[in-house]
Amino acid sequence: MAVQIRKLDSTAPDFKQTLSSLLAFEAETDDAIESSVAKILADVKHRGDAAVLEYTNKFDRIPNGGASSMAAFDIRQDELDAALAAIPEAQRNALRTAAERIRVFHERQKQELNGFTFTEPDGTVLGQRVTPLDRVGIYVPGGKAAYPSSVLMNAIPAKVAGVQEIVMVVPTPDGVKNQMVLGAAAIAGVTRVITIGGAQAVGALAYGTETIPAVDKIVGPGNAYVAAAKRRVFGVVGIDMIAGPSEILVLCDGTTDPDWIAMDLFSQAEHDELAQAILLCPDADYIARVEASIHKLLPTMPRHETITTSLTDRGALVKVRDMEEACAIANDIAAEHLEVSAEDPLKWADRIRHAGAMFLGRFSSESLGDYCCGPNHVLPTSRTARFSSPLGVYDFQKRSSVIQVSEQGAQTLGKVAAELAYGEGLQAHARSAELRIKS
Amino acid sequence: MAVQIRKLDSTAPDFKQTLSSLLAFEAETDDAIESSVAKILADVKHRGDAAVLEYTNKFDRIPNGGASSMAAFDIRQDELDAALAAIPEAQRNALRTAAERIRVFHERQKQELNGFTFTEPDGTVLGQRVTPLDRVGIYVPGGKAAYPSSVLMNAIPAKVAGVQEIVMVVPTPDGVKNQMVLGAAAIAGVTRVITIGGAQAVGALAYGTETIPAVDKIVGPGNAYVAAAKRRVFGVVGIDMIAGPSEILVLCDGTTDPDWIAMDLFSQAEHDELAQAILLCPDADYIARVEASIHKLLPTMPRHETITTSLTDRGALVKVRDMEEACAIANDIAAEHLEVSAEDPLKWADRIRHAGAMFLGRFSSESLGDYCCGPNHVLPTSRTARFSSPLGVYDFQKRSSVIQVSEQGAQTLGKVAAELAYGEGLQAHARSAELRIKS
Repeated sequence: MAVQIRKLDSTAPDFKQTLSSLLAFEAETDDAIESSVAKILADVKHRGDAAVLEYTNKFDRIPNGGASSMAAFDIRQDELDAALAAIPEAQRNALRTAAERIRVFHERQKQELNGFTFTEPDGTVLGQRVTPLDRVGIYVPGGKAAYPSSVLMNAIPAKVAGVQEIVMVVPTPDGVKNQMVLGAAAIAGVTRVITIGGAQAVGALAYGTETIPAVDKIVGPGNAYVAAAKRRVFGVVGIDMIAGPSEILVLCDGTTDPDWIAMDLFSQAEHDELAQAILLCPDADYIARVEASIHKLLPTMPRHETITTSLTDRGALVKVRDMEEACAIANDIAAEHLEVSAEDPLKWADRIRHAGAMFLGRFSSESLGDYCCGPNHVLPTSRTARFSSPLGVYDFQKRSSVIQVSEQGAQTLGKVAAELAYGEGLQAHARSAELRIKS
Repeated sequence: MAVQIRKLDSTAPDFKQTLSSLLAFEAETDDAIESSVAKILADVKHRGDAAVLEYTNKFDRIPNGGASSMAAFDIRQDELDAALAAIPEAQRNALRTAAERIRVFHERQKQELNGFTFTEPDGTVLGQRVTPLDRVGIYVPGGKAAYPSSVLMNAIPAKVAGVQEIVMVVPTPDGVKNQMVLGAAAIAGVTRVITIGGAQAVGALAYGTETIPAVDKIVGPGNAYVAAAKRRVFGVVGIDMIAGPSEILVLCDGTTDPDWIAMDLFSQAEHDELAQAILLCPDADYIARVEASIHKLLPTMPRHETITTSLTDRGALVKVRDMEEACAIANDIAAEHLEVSAEDPLKWADRIRHAGAMFLGRFSSESLGDYCCGPNHVLPTSRTARFSSPLGVYDFQKRSSVIQVSEQGAQTLGKVAAELAYGEGLQAHARSAELRIKS
């Protein structure tokens, strides 16, 4: 199958509608998955460890007839350290460099949120406290799509926030452990690693079992069962966003090496067949050169089949009127990853209101950000950058309001509160305020 | 029916379990509501205004045979201004005072989140931008439980955040408009008011119709249909938390007038029969005095029936060993509202890790915070204060990461990224980084 990436023109009368259908992605609800997940969660909630043990032995095909107790799934710290020591030195150093840069960036995020207190003339004190969550769970997929970079990106912000207990779950299908993932856990400061996965792991983290303490929030990517389970336990615990397919939108003024842009589009498309890569450019000749680069470079890619399907089904090369229009379209798309590959990237970036992460200038390939620039690679997908943010330290903190009304303050505030409370028909509210007013 | 508030003792062997069952609240999923809401949302998504018009005429019993077009549901600015002019002066002044205090507190919140940028020695620039949402929808319940204070608490943070369009929907059953609610909308700076409600209003805000633009986030309380609809559109738009019943936890050292504490418990219990009011105190004699106050004051309360049911079914007076233990229990409960009514409230507040809002000192009744102290009254319920925050300016802002890698930065970062990308089997990621490295 040859790649056939569609070419659009923003001046076409049906452009808006074509783009809209191209962007449309609705996660389908699979009733079989939903009912299976509901059953597993209920079972874990009521039977605890026994249920987790059974499901794990079965679904992950644990060898030698399965584990006989939950203790078999705990990975001790010395095993994590050994995994880190066992991987190639270049990988270990790269993980360490990435982790340190991620830590530095997220420390900067933490500095921004300190809480505040102010005192009014009558002595009333108002404020906001910021505190870390006590305990969080991090879901890490196992098997083929095992990403050590995700371990760093999910665990380090929690660590920086001051979370005391970081419990990582990672399934080990057929009992196979990924050493790079375990090494990343050692570097990131995960406090406990349990080799369980699926809806049963989400249930164990949400409700707690005899051996696994209930957490306050669960983050991290997973398959359809994990996503369904996270949706269902939301409210009992916090969750991060349920991610859709990954996307990149490249705005290019036609001055970047077309091979670079083609490879940037591939780097998104290779994730999976539903991933989306779109280029906006005002220069038709340049678009043709990118297309030529795509055809030239694609055969060199080990994941060319996935890339071909993704680009053919969901990709586009869009000729726009000018870079101003490209920015306006980018605001409608609200992309997860936005590359501004142009001579004066800041000029265009200033017009962007919605994007998960912006990669400015031709040296800022998305792949650098995915691994080691420092900002998080967990980003809002499917246009949710209109209202949500990258995963960050703030996701592992919460705020509490602090209200300390002085005796004098209660005299004036009490009258205002009572007036409004009576207006709403809430008389105990009014009386509670009035009791504090001196007669 | 006489009030029978349970009395617990923390030294009882089954105390932990008793408290746990008392706190347990699971919102039931009503299949009839779910399927009705799914149908309404699909209908609004596909038929737009026509569906909203039909459902509104029917469910809200719009008089005179119903409205003939959506235009009938729009309230013009001059009607909002007239409503504000028509309510009693004391109410108008109270609303204005409350609004100004809420604005001042939330401006302080906004100052804390400015984004940041830093430049590395090789010229690479990293940062985080903070931008407001474009357009938000605020759901305000109509009919009997119409709360102008909720209009202020939901709209003002959005306004302070810099949201340009604030669309408020409020149903008017039988065509009856609440003048105080409309007056509050005028004060809060709501940009459009539409008298529609229910799942059809949530659908219109989420998907947009011919006359109603799609918003980026929907906030505000509503009945079971509204809550179910918000859950379903989550992802298409952002939503605030789905609130459970309201709760207060009072920690008292026995030095506050027991009438005050009794009334504070009532002020929570009068909300609805599922509301929860709990007192923790180390002094058994004082608890008896609060109980006597409850019996004395309850008959004076217009909403005594609701209060009686709430206190009997879900309330408790708990004798604890000491204030230290009270703080530990408070951290387990993670209450929406936490009053620390004690001689030295800060001493105890410093031990609290989880609470939506803390009311410190005996003059800080929750009712003052509900209306006019300044902090938000939309707070995390049902133990979700372990991982979530009061509604705030930050709920109407989002962050974007900014990554501008210098040519020099791409040389070092590219090697790290490529190493990790090859380790994860993502070769296009690796090549995209390597293309930027000078050979």
